[in-house]
Amino acid sequence: MSDSTSKSEYLIGVDLGGTKILAGVFDKNLKCLGRTKMSTKAERGVSSVIERVGHCVRDVVDECDLKLDQVRAVGIGAPGAVNRVTGHVIFAPNLKWQNVPLKKELEKDLGVPVFLENDCNGCTLGVYETELKGKPRNVIGIFVGTGIGGGIIVNGEMFRGFNHTAGEIGHMVLQIDGPKCGCGNKGCLEALASRTAIFKRIESAVKAGQKTVLTEMLGEDLKDLRSGDLRKAIRKGDKFVDKVIEDAAEYIGIAIGNLINIFNPEIVVLGGGVIDALEDEMMPIIIEVAHDFAMSGTADGIEIVASKVGDDAGILGGAVLARRESK
Amino acid sequence: MSDSTSKSEYLIGVDLGGTKILAGVFDKNLKCLGRTKMSTKAERGVSSVIERVGHCVRDVVDECDLKLDQVRAVGIGAPGAVNRVTGHVIFAPNLKWQNVPLKKELEKDLGVPVFLENDCNGCTLGVYETELKGKPRNVIGIFVGTGIGGGIIVNGEMFRGFNHTAGEIGHMVLQIDGPKCGCGNKGCLEALASRTAIFKRIESAVKAGQKTVLTEMLGEDLKDLRSGDLRKAIRKGDKFVDKVIEDAAEYIGIAIGNLINIFNPEIVVLGGGVIDALEDEMMPIIIEVAHDFAMSGTADGIEIVASKVGDDAGILGGAVLARRESK
Repeated sequence: MSDSTSKSEYLIGVDLGGTKILAGVFDKNLKCLGRTKMSTKAERGVSSVIERVGHCVRDVVDECDLKLDQVRAVGIGAPGAVNRVTGHVIFAPNLKWQNVPLKKELEKDLGVPVFLENDCNGCTLGVYETELKGKPRNVIGIFVGTGIGGGIIVNGEMFRGFNHTAGEIGHMVLQIDGPKCGCGNKGCLEALASRTAIFKRIESAVKAGQKTVLTEMLGEDLKDLRSGDLRKAIRKGDKFVDKVIEDAAEYIGIAIGNLINIFNPEIVVLGGGVIDALEDEMMPIIIEVAHDFAMSGTADGIEIVASKVGDDAGILGGAVLARRESK
Repeated sequence: MSDSTSKSEYLIGVDLGGTKILAGVFDKNLKCLGRTKMSTKAERGVSSVIERVGHCVRDVVDECDLKLDQVRAVGIGAPGAVNRVTGHVIFAPNLKWQNVPLKKELEKDLGVPVFLENDCNGCTLGVYETELKGKPRNVIGIFVGTGIGGGIIVNGEMFRGFNHTAGEIGHMVLQIDGPKCGCGNKGCLEALASRTAIFKRIESAVKAGQKTVLTEMLGEDLKDLRSGDLRKAIRKGDKFVDKVIEDAAEYIGIAIGNLINIFNPEIVVLGGGVIDALEDEMMPIIIEVAHDFAMSGTADGIEIVASKVGDDAGILGGAVLARRESK
């Protein structure tokens, strides 16, 4: 049993994604005590997904031999535009959600305060408070996975903008006549350098007869392709995969050059599955190209680094949010 | 003669450009009492230009029947990266300046406090305090002239970033393989939609045989071409010029869509010679395209407007800077 001083001191971070829900229990020093994972099953509808989030939270609390009344707050990152004041998910295309009162529903279910944030804002906040120790004043976080999202910290605080949607770095157009993006535009960073974009390019090249060790590893249909396989292919000397990843890294570098010209942050931190798997291959190119595209003198002393928190960025961000907001 | 209460209450704004220097005297309510203009003659070197700025300030003060000891402060916008703390112009390619102690030199010359800012930051500040009455919290200013520059206001304050260079919106790459930009990259907004870019496109089309009323108006070499001539040509039904301006407006609209996705400001305000001359032709396209390129829900309620201050933006910005900094 917990004594009175330890009561309600645990924090839960939840990473609600289009395909999976991750939940983690953290102590007040942001040490992770346990994690659970569950598929989202967005196709079952809003109430079902909210129920699954609640389920996931109860499971991880139980896994850590705790009870819900020992939890101070839950912080949750959702994949879309959120209104953190009302606690609504305004728009989340991957979940097919519009105007869902996630905070209210989860608080009703769990009986614990719930705080909501955009997923990439959450990841940025998590990296900011743990890896960067909250020191730099102005930071941009960029997360490269299925899509590409970001978060902006100004003067040590999350910058959300007028409609709470700031940080959609993946939808910066870099190539007006470029490939079609899920958002409806063409040539967004996300359509050029996300995992989805990289896989699409590889699949259509293979269909057109391109040789690659990936098909030897995974079969012609490449249906189980993961970011880690790309790293393996490059290390086996696959020039084609190497070029695809080099191009993606260049696009990310140009986007960062743009952001340095416009926003001039102190540090740009990158994360997400693609960067986690291909850090060694991509980061040197990203850094070089970003410096090439930033105007003379604007990038001096600005750091461009890969985060080390990996898959935990989302749940860590949720925990940081829970700690910040429940103070 | 001024009485003791009116002593040192006047503000001077200076707009130091690559080709001309503008100076204006303002009262404490930012009413303009007089203006002077002088060519920059950057080719004569740093000391000569600084001397000319001093000359221009003395002239406008005299023009308004005032004396320098009635001036509270001078605010000056310079075309490049500045360090407003040390008062150095770090880098100004149009002037061929590097690390020039402009504040110190001008203060020595004039005996009045001098405050320095990047020109487009100054223009944004001027528009913000006068037209927008300092009300919106987050604003982006975009100025389209020979080049394209911008300024960002966050929480009511100028946002300068780590190297004091934030706001270089003209050097956002929109078209990776696009036309060469003065900064060395390709496809920057400035290389697609500045007056320089527009004129280049017209001149090379005319050389290639394109028919336009501009050559009837100005002769085959188009050497006296100005933004206002483009408006006249469009109003005379010139489809070619209409298309060139439509394209430039589209590029600016895409850039604003990007900025809404990334930064989500409350208002985007446009100015500069090209917008001043072609507001009716360009603004409807800019607004429509920006909304098309902003993600669903992100642009709701965000205003995109043309400034009404025209050529005065720079000197007005200087006066606002002088008032803010000398408080």
